[in-house]
Amino acid sequence: MRTPSNEDTLLKRIARAFPASRSRAIALGIGDDAALLAPRPGRETILTCDWFLEGTHFLRDKHPARAVGWKCLARAMSDIAAMGGTPRCFLLSLALPPSHTGPWLTEFLDGLRRASRVYRCELAGGDTTRRSEILISITAVGDVAKRRALLRSGARPGDRIFVSGTLGEAERGLRHLRKMRGAVKSSDPLLRKHFYPEPRVALGQWLAGGRLATATMDLSDGLSSDLPRLCAASAVGARVDAVLLPLIPGAKKGEAMSLALDGGDDYELLFTVAPKNLHRIPDKFHKVCLHNIGVITREKEVRLHSEGESIRSLRRGGWDPFRN
Amino acid sequence: MRTPSNEDTLLKRIARAFPASRSRAIALGIGDDAALLAPRPGRETILTCDWFLEGTHFLRDKHPARAVGWKCLARAMSDIAAMGGTPRCFLLSLALPPSHTGPWLTEFLDGLRRASRVYRCELAGGDTTRRSEILISITAVGDVAKRRALLRSGARPGDRIFVSGTLGEAERGLRHLRKMRGAVKSSDPLLRKHFYPEPRVALGQWLAGGRLATATMDLSDGLSSDLPRLCAASAVGARVDAVLLPLIPGAKKGEAMSLALDGGDDYELLFTVAPKNLHRIPDKFHKVCLHNIGVITREKEVRLHSEGESIRSLRRGGWDPFRN
Repeated sequence: MRTPSNEDTLLKRIARAFPASRSRAIALGIGDDAALLAPRPGRETILTCDWFLEGTHFLRDKHPARAVGWKCLARAMSDIAAMGGTPRCFLLSLALPPSHTGPWLTEFLDGLRRASRVYRCELAGGDTTRRSEILISITAVGDVAKRRALLRSGARPGDRIFVSGTLGEAERGLRHLRKMRGAVKSSDPLLRKHFYPEPRVALGQWLAGGRLATATMDLSDGLSSDLPRLCAASAVGARVDAVLLPLIPGAKKGEAMSLALDGGDDYELLFTVAPKNLHRIPDKFHKVCLHNIGVITREKEVRLHSEGESIRSLRRGGWDPFRN
Repeated sequence: MRTPSNEDTLLKRIARAFPASRSRAIALGIGDDAALLAPRPGRETILTCDWFLEGTHFLRDKHPARAVGWKCLARAMSDIAAMGGTPRCFLLSLALPPSHTGPWLTEFLDGLRRASRVYRCELAGGDTTRRSEILISITAVGDVAKRRALLRSGARPGDRIFVSGTLGEAERGLRHLRKMRGAVKSSDPLLRKHFYPEPRVALGQWLAGGRLATATMDLSDGLSSDLPRLCAASAVGARVDAVLLPLIPGAKKGEAMSLALDGGDDYELLFTVAPKNLHRIPDKFHKVCLHNIGVITREKEVRLHSEGESIRSLRRGGWDPFRN
């Protein structure tokens, strides 16, 4: 047959980068009109999609291609974690300039493959096109036992509010990155959480399996944006105790507080626990600290309680692309 | 609670435009971290995603927003049709300039909702962001009875090759559109197939249900690009008889032939049928003509047989974003 066209060649390169797709999850992978997935009995399918766009979510000259590959899938894994689900497969929509189909693509696929292996989420298909800017859209598919999915809507007054990990590290990394001149070291510890976030998939599964959380979501836009969303979905309010927030150790207090409240991209889990189950929540889950930061209230307001200050409404300061 | 942020407002507008999502397909729709879909017993899940980008797939000033809404979903439905599947739900990733969140968005959602109703495919979720250009990525989910999906890989030498409908109308519409000055009439009959393609979902289901096709794909890039793909997947060749191609009636013969071979965006089905099943293929299926255009061959070449000319290799002339 004649030489395949460039788009076909690109698809083949992507398919070759994911040779391990031999599991029973994917009945049919790349190369047909669509992918086929065999659902597991007794489980519901989780579906989520996420933009990852040059200039909006990453910078071509600042973010290593490997980090772009890791992070575009990690963000989608975080949505599955927030539902308490098990990742199964993903679709990659990729638009690239011709200049980026060489080494950049190789490194991008390397980072993507690492995330795919760590989270056991196989590439099932996708779509490619040429574009002057790098555009990525990831659709991730997972599953969860019927009626066990973690929703945003179950928080009740009196439930305690928890977050995993430390808040604000990813945003601090982004600020650090913006100030940098010249080549970026992907191993810089200040950039680790911004480049290579670790979605809390195991934690989400454990919360769902034990019916431990009344409501759950992931922190992608920052606590001050995301907690009001959880409260709105549950028709409740919240009071957060500033002193209980897991701030970045060693940072200036004011800055650490603003990073913890408004910093996006942490991909930690935010969840609520009924009082009767509080004793079942450990201080750490698989080396990740779990912090009790406040309580769900009947009044539909989200308030921050700081020592020595009066209680104030939590101001929404997180990431919102449509805010002027 | 305080006024929701603009991104939340946009999501709510989209959700409100799809109020009918009350079926059992979607256990949980827009508004949580991800959507939940209840798989049907005995069926496999079909997954496909498609770019639909301003400047690449449509023009902001030429394509009515309603047609953009219809077509972005119709294209994904065509991939499900090509698998013989039943549409179930879709995810919408949408990036918009702030100038397009008013009337443009309303009309876009109107076209999208019409396609969603016609193909019974519910909006299950999505992602929105702000961007100077209009970017759309659609993920469509369908299902099909186990081991009944129509693949590209089953064509055998001696199978007859069929296409549905007429070839080249969408491309002719695009050429007509490019020449137009001023306002575009969305009702212009020359533009109908380019603006509002009708993916052959019922035909695909019928072929799959009756095990009638040995291989199937949809024609999105043009016969001269797509038939070689089907042949490559099946490790066979093909001979197409030019005189049997369903050309646009009334057009000049040379132009009609080039439109039929190289015109993209028709979203007709291309399928192969074993000789023993030929008598089961009618001339028309639900008012759509089915045309026997050639035969699958053992030699791995795709050739065009024209009257009065020698047989020549079919030159790939369809759409490929990565061809220079």
